[in-house]
Amino acid sequence: MSLLIVGTVAFDELITPFGESGKILGGSGTYAGLSASNFMDDINIVSVVGEDFPEEHLANFRKKGISTEGINVVKGGKTFFWKGKYHNDMNTRDTLDTQLNVLADFDPVIPESFRKSDFLMLGNLTPAVQMNVLDQMEERPKLVILDTMNFWMDIAMDELKAVLKKIDVLTINDEEARQLSGEYSLVRAAQKIFEMGPKYLIIKKGEHGALLFGEGEVFFAPALPLEEVFDPTGAGDTFAGGFIGHLAHTRDISFDNMKRAVIFGSALASFCVEKFGTERIAAITPEEMNERVSQFIELTQFEIEL
Amino acid sequence: MSLLIVGTVAFDELITPFGESGKILGGSGTYAGLSASNFMDDINIVSVVGEDFPEEHLANFRKKGISTEGINVVKGGKTFFWKGKYHNDMNTRDTLDTQLNVLADFDPVIPESFRKSDFLMLGNLTPAVQMNVLDQMEERPKLVILDTMNFWMDIAMDELKAVLKKIDVLTINDEEARQLSGEYSLVRAAQKIFEMGPKYLIIKKGEHGALLFGEGEVFFAPALPLEEVFDPTGAGDTFAGGFIGHLAHTRDISFDNMKRAVIFGSALASFCVEKFGTERIAAITPEEMNERVSQFIELTQFEIEL
Repeated sequence: MSLLIVGTVAFDELITPFGESGKILGGSGTYAGLSASNFMDDINIVSVVGEDFPEEHLANFRKKGISTEGINVVKGGKTFFWKGKYHNDMNTRDTLDTQLNVLADFDPVIPESFRKSDFLMLGNLTPAVQMNVLDQMEERPKLVILDTMNFWMDIAMDELKAVLKKIDVLTINDEEARQLSGEYSLVRAAQKIFEMGPKYLIIKKGEHGALLFGEGEVFFAPALPLEEVFDPTGAGDTFAGGFIGHLAHTRDISFDNMKRAVIFGSALASFCVEKFGTERIAAITPEEMNERVSQFIELTQFEIEL
Repeated sequence: MSLLIVGTVAFDELITPFGESGKILGGSGTYAGLSASNFMDDINIVSVVGEDFPEEHLANFRKKGISTEGINVVKGGKTFFWKGKYHNDMNTRDTLDTQLNVLADFDPVIPESFRKSDFLMLGNLTPAVQMNVLDQMEERPKLVILDTMNFWMDIAMDELKAVLKKIDVLTINDEEARQLSGEYSLVRAAQKIFEMGPKYLIIKKGEHGALLFGEGEVFFAPALPLEEVFDPTGAGDTFAGGFIGHLAHTRDISFDNMKRAVIFGSALASFCVEKFGTERIAAITPEEMNERVSQFIELTQFEIEL
């Protein structure tokens, strides 16, 4: 099965209580793609970078089974850059610098050969760009997952609601679910959001885990309790990439398989935060993955005879 | 097996977005005792009330298998009273009134016949009172669980640390675990707290569930996602009472059984918040309990072949 990811490929610079990263590879498309590459190798990223983006990063994507044909390198352009500083609790951060650069005019063109992808992940971009991508697909993908944030709810709610009608899985955090639905209870929020289009809702709660809602079904996966969170950047995109990567690899979109996908996504997110940027998720061995999933089994599984 | 619970038996008055409770039965000993009574009937509560405390409530305790011999009725005294108002999110609240009354001079005397109890729960009281109870036990109970809060860490840390040396299971929330240990990471906080005495740590995270730490082991149970939280008062004591009630009933303090106890405690807490006060936890049928535990199984269980 083929997986198409539309998202940012960017530079990040991170300051945490543990040190400074310098200018490193980042972006939602990057994290999601590298995360999914732990399951499959027919992955396509559609994005935009500037001429300053090192060919080395693109070569590394290709080594991981990620096509870079859809990553538009803008001549004379500069790559999207974000700089942030995490507070001591690692849960809150300040943005120190945002340079949109080539992202400001991002008008994704889906290469011909990607337009029949079976699985589509729309990273956190303007709803109009997300809709534009959907319009270019020649066949309705088997599953479309969309990530968004409160910013678009504040300034582009109508466009967001239009694109929500056309997707299957929405990933947002708990505050965003409340904002989008107007409901404080997450159960009621899910019901309202289902009326907007999505058939599944994943509520990302960071260190408090993730909830997967389906019609009449709900599943919860905790975050792995860690001794140290070194850098939380990209954990949400890593989760989403692992989620859809597992589904695409197994070609099974049943709720039971989505539960497994949530666990794999959570396991990948727990790797992501161990080092700066994408360093850790680009170097996971199958043994390490099995060991990590075993930890989730110990953490959550119990036996009760009723 | 016998269970001794030392905690408050009190009056609460609650104002929530859904209505006002009027003056109703409350207190940590009350919630824990009624919760545990869903598993067993050899329960003893040691507490203090005033002459204004209705005999009807005491009779109801006895009907549930809870001895009231250790509940001291102070002649001419008034029962501890707390009045609070919940904000719209139901997670935060303001205290409107606190009248300690007879609780101000609470000096628990453990009746002779309770001094060999196998299981002991020390509800949230001054650490000196908790120590006083431990000193009266003729035999070391099989398991001692202690609840406390940030208030005692602020004003009586030395006394708290002295009593922590003598218990098995500590229940606190995430912020309190951080305050007590000086560690932000809950994994590290657990390690530090184990050095203080407890062998198990339960971190109560309210709507975000509960973590059970043992030596080299960890288990997580989510809170059940609910359409409506009507009144969260007493949910933590209900959880703790269900936890120790299941352990005492099954006479098994293995980590695997503690996992089950955490699930039963979480199930009871999910009932607790459905109505004002103790109304719901005092009227759970075995069928309702099985149905609720089944919901936890669906919420958390998955199958992955490694």
